[in-house]
Amino acid sequence: MEAPRSAQQRKRDTLTRLASDVDAWIATADAAGSGYLLPLSFLWDGAGLIVATPSSSVTGRNLSRGGRVRVGVGELRDVTMIDGTAEPMRDERVKDEFAAKHRWDPRKEPGDYAFFRIVPDRVQAWREVNELPGRTLMRDGNWLA
Amino acid sequence: MEAPRSAQQRKRDTLTRLASDVDAWIATADAAGSGYLLPLSFLWDGAGLIVATPSSSVTGRNLSRGGRVRVGVGELRDVTMIDGTAEPMRDERVKDEFAAKHRWDPRKEPGDYAFFRIVPDRVQAWREVNELPGRTLMRDGNWLA
Repeated sequence: MEAPRSAQQRKRDTLTRLASDVDAWIATADAAGSGYLLPLSFLWDGAGLIVATPSSSVTGRNLSRGGRVRVGVGELRDVTMIDGTAEPMRDERVKDEFAAKHRWDPRKEPGDYAFFRIVPDRVQAWREVNELPGRTLMRDGNWLA
Repeated sequence: MEAPRSAQQRKRDTLTRLASDVDAWIATADAAGSGYLLPLSFLWDGAGLIVATPSSSVTGRNLSRGGRVRVGVGELRDVTMIDGTAEPMRDERVKDEFAAKHRWDPRKEPGDYAFFRIVPDRVQAWREVNELPGRTLMRDGNWLA
């Protein structure tokens, strides 16, 4: 096990991942309290994670509820966990960025794709158990490091 | 992109992963409909995924509700998705197996760890978009292949 990283290093690593990673695990829930999970391609636009999914899909319906969302980025032993809320994302320039990053434009798909921005209020990052202390990098929307 | 695997091959790959993988993404929800997500070490005992987590943790409380749970195993481009329900797991021999696999015995931890078995009723597996057709390997608790 390597020595735990500093808060500054974890924040740098987290922002690097958000800028370069392709997919993230998106965990949502319906009003009845059933959990759902799906990997989706994302774009980090500096304010949140942009994802696109059919409006009528389970994840689309759950994101539309505006409830709490949790996102897992990275690998199982190099985890970034993001808590936040989803809001509809209608900025066409950000949609262009999303399409450029993924070489895939949901606006050109048949079916009613919706874009959402998942805005984090808490961010945590850890690798092994020795990094559990100090894993919280953002609280109430503010970076701690 | 490689050619899509047959249903039989996907089932074999899925069972191999369940036998050998260490951690899985566990997505739960609370009664108010907030989604939660955490990677946890698991053991596949043939009937379900065994996980251990403090009873008072968010995941512990959500699993105790008995609601729908979704589990992601594997990597973002080689995904196994498992839908099921959690039940308390009290078999000491299975707890021994869990401790042997992970060289970590939650029963020896301070704090009130609880074991759960997540019993799948649906299993899906896919790598890329060309494997989305035929991704359902188990429906209503029955393997289709």
